[in-house]
Amino acid sequence: MVSVELITVGDELLIGQVVDTNSAWIGRELGNIGAQVDRIVSVHDMAEDIQEAVQAALGRADVVIMTGGLGPTKDDITKKTLAELFSGGVLVRDEAVYEHVRRMTEERGLAFNELNRAQALVPEGCVALENRVGTAPGMMFVRPGAGDEREKLLFSLPGVPFEMKELVSEQVIPILKDRFALRAVVHRTMITFGLAESAMALAIAPWEEALPKWLHLAYLPNARGIRLRLSAYDVDVAEAAGEIEGQFDKLKMYIAPYMLGYEPASVESAVAGILAERGETLAVAESCTGGSISARITAMAGASEYYLGGVTSYSNEAKASILGVSTDDIEKYEAVSETVARQMAAGVLERFGADYGVSTTGVAGPGGGTAEKPVGTVWMAIAWRGDDGRVETSARLMRFSELRDQNIERAATHALNMLRLHLLGVSDAFQQTGML
Amino acid sequence: MVSVELITVGDELLIGQVVDTNSAWIGRELGNIGAQVDRIVSVHDMAEDIQEAVQAALGRADVVIMTGGLGPTKDDITKKTLAELFSGGVLVRDEAVYEHVRRMTEERGLAFNELNRAQALVPEGCVALENRVGTAPGMMFVRPGAGDEREKLLFSLPGVPFEMKELVSEQVIPILKDRFALRAVVHRTMITFGLAESAMALAIAPWEEALPKWLHLAYLPNARGIRLRLSAYDVDVAEAAGEIEGQFDKLKMYIAPYMLGYEPASVESAVAGILAERGETLAVAESCTGGSISARITAMAGASEYYLGGVTSYSNEAKASILGVSTDDIEKYEAVSETVARQMAAGVLERFGADYGVSTTGVAGPGGGTAEKPVGTVWMAIAWRGDDGRVETSARLMRFSELRDQNIERAATHALNMLRLHLLGVSDAFQQTGML
Repeated sequence: MVSVELITVGDELLIGQVVDTNSAWIGRELGNIGAQVDRIVSVHDMAEDIQEAVQAALGRADVVIMTGGLGPTKDDITKKTLAELFSGGVLVRDEAVYEHVRRMTEERGLAFNELNRAQALVPEGCVALENRVGTAPGMMFVRPGAGDEREKLLFSLPGVPFEMKELVSEQVIPILKDRFALRAVVHRTMITFGLAESAMALAIAPWEEALPKWLHLAYLPNARGIRLRLSAYDVDVAEAAGEIEGQFDKLKMYIAPYMLGYEPASVESAVAGILAERGETLAVAESCTGGSISARITAMAGASEYYLGGVTSYSNEAKASILGVSTDDIEKYEAVSETVARQMAAGVLERFGADYGVSTTGVAGPGGGTAEKPVGTVWMAIAWRGDDGRVETSARLMRFSELRDQNIERAATHALNMLRLHLLGVSDAFQQTGML
Repeated sequence: MVSVELITVGDELLIGQVVDTNSAWIGRELGNIGAQVDRIVSVHDMAEDIQEAVQAALGRADVVIMTGGLGPTKDDITKKTLAELFSGGVLVRDEAVYEHVRRMTEERGLAFNELNRAQALVPEGCVALENRVGTAPGMMFVRPGAGDEREKLLFSLPGVPFEMKELVSEQVIPILKDRFALRAVVHRTMITFGLAESAMALAIAPWEEALPKWLHLAYLPNARGIRLRLSAYDVDVAEAAGEIEGQFDKLKMYIAPYMLGYEPASVESAVAGILAERGETLAVAESCTGGSISARITAMAGASEYYLGGVTSYSNEAKASILGVSTDDIEKYEAVSETVARQMAAGVLERFGADYGVSTTGVAGPGGGTAEKPVGTVWMAIAWRGDDGRVETSARLMRFSELRDQNIERAATHALNMLRLHLLGVSDAFQQTGML
């Protein structure tokens, strides 16, 4: 198997000015061709740190890919450092790069200056890789094998994402495919929502134990659920894909109601899929979630097919005047209550003429909680038309955390999930078991 | 100076399933207290790789912070590996953690299972750090100094971002402040919106050239504007802070209308500040932005003080029936039009009894564009009451990109910025110069 290490160069990564999205992108692209990223290291733009990182990476991996530290105005420390390591410090002019940079500056109407001329200098013996979308060339260094040591490759690429991507796609990947027998790899990820990680582990233990040894399971939890990834290496790709699909089918015996679909599925995409298929429509009434359910639905292309709209009723007056919630009930039960949640869901359904309504009302925090209804208390409800045409509702109480953003995100996700389970015909009783 | 290295654990980072946003966040937070991240390493969830990375990091840095690999399921081996390294493999139950996990599962109505019990096991001799927002505790290990070698600290934190952030803010940073003489550092970041990077550079060049040499300026552009950071190192903190404040005051001479305030300011926080101060209220009517303006406003604590709510009118019927937009005008001008944008803003103002209304209507894409109104076309409007009590409106047309998420984010930001400029008394003419 081809082992790859990434080295990203730049103070901006270490002080947190820039998030390193390059590495994740390279990891995915190489994974798709069966090469594996085994380590990512970010270092300062300092010769000593770069040298140390390069030597260590070449000691472990077959291929090292460096990004960053190659721009025209940057302190061009990466190139110098690589020259020290590979060519005794000697830089030579690459005529193809020189011509390319000259033409590129000319086309852009810029002066061909000192800095551009310097860009055509590369360490002697390296292979300059044409950068069609920028002036800094990529570079490939080959360290020949010796004794037990295999031949190693090092690529140095600009850090600007679109230039890096161009060079990886057009230069690095073809070279890797050409030089190495790459391993076949299959990844597939199922998105789940509603089970806590420990409950999930227990629920699926029998399935997990029965997985073939060559399939690797990973749990990837985040705020919107747990992703379950199955991976297979060195396999017949079509066969492994079929096996993985079959295994996820079996998983339905254990946790069907929690499975949202393959990545990039989400609770909202699952709801959208069902509504679009049935030709039914939705409207939402949000208090504590403040519009975020609506924003999540409309972030998906094609939402207008099933989504009629929503009301963020942040004031009691709006709950009454727009959604038709009884002012007496708001007075009697308060805004954060089962009654108000049900009336909001029913009200928005009627107001928009939708088939389904979803609502939330809660204490998002940080202030505003009481002993009885502390911060994190959320009532949510869904509404639909029963067989007799009358509006029916179902409500649920949840207690989240003290963090406002968490409370909003989780309330929105759970409210949408309530509707999803209802659409799937999962009973209210199941929803209330606390497994969710 | 305190040198910190970060180790992020998880295959998901290496195969590119997850972008490592934790490291950038930690880099920023530590920079703010005068500690410096000197290296970031991402490794597989494999004992050997973790061990090697930890040993190497402890050899270089004063403090090592690990994130990831601490969830309740079996694929998490960080804890075992640290036990091998620091306590001869011995795990002991931490009673405080045990009680916390038990109470937390109980409050959430979940079963307290064997995996939760395992979460209370920590390597002997480590300090368990309370995680108020999750069940996996943080851990601190102290490696005593010996000979020339200083004492070293290692923190292991869960990888889930909100849990990691809670632990860094509430535990790690206070401990670092307590144990180390941190370098004096002052960073202050001004958030701007509305000027492109090159236009900004030209506009502020005289100011930049007159900055004292010991103040460092960084441009940090992102989708919501350009952040301008001034930094000073090894200085008298109060004096430097005063100087920086004075410099940003001077900056107002050049770009006052674009300055939103100090980080974490945003267009919405700037609007919120003005409304709260004046005791005025806002309601929003969203079509193409789909609830995201509302969600951005309500993400801020205390929004109910000035925010009455909003309507996402994703259908023409909702625009007419809830916001009172003329159906004839929708027919005549189409939903994406100046007329409809103005009527939406005025309608939502009246419907909610607010002092101001904001609206958007556009083609978010990917489909639905025409030659005349391509994808990315957005009309936005604001409404207010004039001196005679009548509702007045102002509208603006913008053309963004072909990307749905970009179009939504930019339309929401620009619509809020229109209101902000109106509240500041900046004329419509200025807003239309294209500088914005």
